[in-house]
Amino acid sequence: MNPRYSLLLLGFCTPVLGADGLAIYTHGGAKPAAMACASCHGADGMGMAAAGFPRIAGLPEAYLERQMRAYREGLRANPVMQPIAAALTEDETRIVLQYVSTLPAPAYPQITRAAEARDAGAVLALRGDWPQGIPECVSCHGPGGVGVGGDFPPLVGQPENYLMDQLDAWRKGTRKGDPQDLMGRIARAMNEAQVSAAAGYFSALKPGTAVPAQTTDEPASKTANAAPPPSAAPSTSGFTPPAEDSLGDDPFSQLVRQGRALFVDTAREARPFVGNGMNCVNCHLDQGRLGGSGPLWGAYPMYPAWRVKDKAVDSYADRLRGCFRFSMNGTEPPVDGPVIQALAAYSYWLSTGARIGLAPAGRGYPAIPEPAGGYDLVQGQKVYGQSCAICHGTQGQGMKVGEGYVFPPLWGADSYNWGAGMARLDYAAAFIHTNMPLGQGNTLSPADAWHVAAYMNSHERPRDPRMIDGSVEKTRAAFHAGQPTLYGATVNGVRLGAGTP
Amino acid sequence: MNPRYSLLLLGFCTPVLGADGLAIYTHGGAKPAAMACASCHGADGMGMAAAGFPRIAGLPEAYLERQMRAYREGLRANPVMQPIAAALTEDETRIVLQYVSTLPAPAYPQITRAAEARDAGAVLALRGDWPQGIPECVSCHGPGGVGVGGDFPPLVGQPENYLMDQLDAWRKGTRKGDPQDLMGRIARAMNEAQVSAAAGYFSALKPGTAVPAQTTDEPASKTANAAPPPSAAPSTSGFTPPAEDSLGDDPFSQLVRQGRALFVDTAREARPFVGNGMNCVNCHLDQGRLGGSGPLWGAYPMYPAWRVKDKAVDSYADRLRGCFRFSMNGTEPPVDGPVIQALAAYSYWLSTGARIGLAPAGRGYPAIPEPAGGYDLVQGQKVYGQSCAICHGTQGQGMKVGEGYVFPPLWGADSYNWGAGMARLDYAAAFIHTNMPLGQGNTLSPADAWHVAAYMNSHERPRDPRMIDGSVEKTRAAFHAGQPTLYGATVNGVRLGAGTP
Repeated sequence: MNPRYSLLLLGFCTPVLGADGLAIYTHGGAKPAAMACASCHGADGMGMAAAGFPRIAGLPEAYLERQMRAYREGLRANPVMQPIAAALTEDETRIVLQYVSTLPAPAYPQITRAAEARDAGAVLALRGDWPQGIPECVSCHGPGGVGVGGDFPPLVGQPENYLMDQLDAWRKGTRKGDPQDLMGRIARAMNEAQVSAAAGYFSALKPGTAVPAQTTDEPASKTANAAPPPSAAPSTSGFTPPAEDSLGDDPFSQLVRQGRALFVDTAREARPFVGNGMNCVNCHLDQGRLGGSGPLWGAYPMYPAWRVKDKAVDSYADRLRGCFRFSMNGTEPPVDGPVIQALAAYSYWLSTGARIGLAPAGRGYPAIPEPAGGYDLVQGQKVYGQSCAICHGTQGQGMKVGEGYVFPPLWGADSYNWGAGMARLDYAAAFIHTNMPLGQGNTLSPADAWHVAAYMNSHERPRDPRMIDGSVEKTRAAFHAGQPTLYGATVNGVRLGAGTP
Repeated sequence: MNPRYSLLLLGFCTPVLGADGLAIYTHGGAKPAAMACASCHGADGMGMAAAGFPRIAGLPEAYLERQMRAYREGLRANPVMQPIAAALTEDETRIVLQYVSTLPAPAYPQITRAAEARDAGAVLALRGDWPQGIPECVSCHGPGGVGVGGDFPPLVGQPENYLMDQLDAWRKGTRKGDPQDLMGRIARAMNEAQVSAAAGYFSALKPGTAVPAQTTDEPASKTANAAPPPSAAPSTSGFTPPAEDSLGDDPFSQLVRQGRALFVDTAREARPFVGNGMNCVNCHLDQGRLGGSGPLWGAYPMYPAWRVKDKAVDSYADRLRGCFRFSMNGTEPPVDGPVIQALAAYSYWLSTGARIGLAPAGRGYPAIPEPAGGYDLVQGQKVYGQSCAICHGTQGQGMKVGEGYVFPPLWGADSYNWGAGMARLDYAAAFIHTNMPLGQGNTLSPADAWHVAAYMNSHERPRDPRMIDGSVEKTRAAFHAGQPTLYGATVNGVRLGAGTP
């Protein structure tokens, strides 16, 4: 046992927790079959890598509780854990899990999508394989796989063979029952090499190591175990942006990399210009590469263009700046400053080979018809609870790791403002239908996508920055008239549009 | 006779000229065959449209003199004029031509390439048919065809059948001997419809009419006699930019039109940012459409890109601004201001269908090898005198109509500065070889293109705006080292680079 953690453990646990949790953990429950947790998971709860016994220290209580139930109910087939889960009483279980959840875990580096992906494991963890419907692991498990909330457990610090076993269990159906089959679907989309690469990546991250720099002297293409980047596979839209490892070390490539980092980690990388918890990648999945998800290669070749929103012909730089003003509820970066230059260079590079001025298939979000009977906020709320709340929170508040959002807030002060495209019901419904839940696009019916889009946009959010004289009515007339939106409507007694307090 | 002109004539001529010129003009020379000019050209020298007798009032003396010699020598076959030219004595000819050249002609509208081209005649006059090697008429005959210097006579105010007869005469070889066969080549490239359209256009322009506005309520495609725009013909480069008449009346199209006007008439349309006598179209023929002539569709799809000139990754806006700083010897328009926005929109539109990031054939100027024995300024001077001076002047000073240059100055205070790409010998040689003389590209040998490029760039011009500490040596080391340029060299005792006084 690492003496550092034992000291922490003693210093932290003794005064706060009763002895019961520690006793059960180290000696087991009342029944003989309720074996001591420490036997396999170690006195510190960090598991035993060689045997494939996982770290449990610091895992969320709700997650641990659900796992125990899964063992009892046979949703997780495991010859060791199933008898123990059955033998522990309900009280014992509650007490020991509370204890386990407070066991300290080391701090792991929070590696975001902005980092370079130098091998197949990093590609899967930080980029995903979207053409196969596999989101990057960190998009749900948080930066560095540190875990998010009660439903997305840490991957980092778990033994490699444990991670591989779990992915295999999902693929074989011996582990199931995860919320909305989120992980089951993804695991079944992974091939064996990907299972191995992802497990290898997260098990190899060491606590306390610094976050790797985003630029590297050694391009991914030169590394020994480089995986084919996800984009090398033909995209479903017919257009394939260039592979990330085709970038060199020249200044142009560096600017493109910088643009990519800004795109996937906007709130951090472009902090002065972001007024909420959003990142570009929230509305443009797969780093802006994915057809049907507002890909950058569908937008860049189509500007300059007239936009009714600005009542002007906008350059692409103008278009990017509009995202900061509305979707990011922030301020527009200077048109010739580093943020816009880098994002424009990234967009240009992703568009390599696209034809200028000709709309490519896969552009934007595929429109879906409004339900014949109109949208229904009650049905939308139901869909939201079933399909969205697990990530975005029951109050649309999103989920954070530390200061940074992993799942974006959908309404409230940290979400997009009333001027954003996503505040339109038709755009939101189109985005949701094709792209949500993450990695499960096209599973909601078009009608349900409309209902839930309306429910999402029936909540208050930051005011439209174009607001005229502080008047929702004037602003609605000037900028929202004729658009499918709830701006200015009264829902549950609230007149929408005045803005979050 | 128009009484207005007769009054002008009497008021102007009587005190200035001797009676001899007027006498010969109205009564003829000493020999009976030397008939009075006024018989056919009218007392005011404005010709007789119905009979196809041309206006001669106010034509340059040198031009008139060369025509009389051409009649005498049989280079112009004309049963009326040949006997008269033969019958007039040398003195009589000189005196009457001097008189004729001072006869007042009305002021015609100076319609530039920036104007709309609403029918086939205007297309030929203001756009040309570059795929057929036909420059726009105004590029040599000046805005509105008002005539430029002694070699490019007015077209405006000439009878339609006179203009048609002359074009036909060049095509049949009954008129020849024009400098460098400039007009002969062009006329032979024209088809009958074009001859008729061009003649109709210039003969129909009325004196004193205002220059038409650049925007029109009626797009060219809707007019009855609209010609297929020149670009509709396949370009030699394999890429065909969209036809001008595909533009509508929407704000985007208006911005594109504005960009086109800026491009072809830069010194006027973007005056605050132009420090010399250059227009974009001087180095990018055919409105930036022509392959091998630095077409905009070859540049726009390739930015942002690293440029050694700026030691930075430049956006397309940056690239455009560089032209103003160097080639225009001016100041950079704001990146988000109307000049750059319009030029970028025009470039984008011309690039419709081009592939982003893939260099198209016809991009830039096709490079030509430096002569094995190096370049030769003496040979360059000879080539210049033979092929360039007629338009650009013996001192490289260009030629103006009023305040505006028709032929750009090649050196001196009103030319591009030492930082411009054209100040590089390799770029200048490449441009010259493919594009000069106007409408006669690829007629100079590659070696002569190098010689004359070196001759052109062996003259002083505005200083490099990047100049360091006022030192040519430091500036050369920082920005010109390793480039084929005469910057910093001493030619005829002058150390080049300090800048024009």
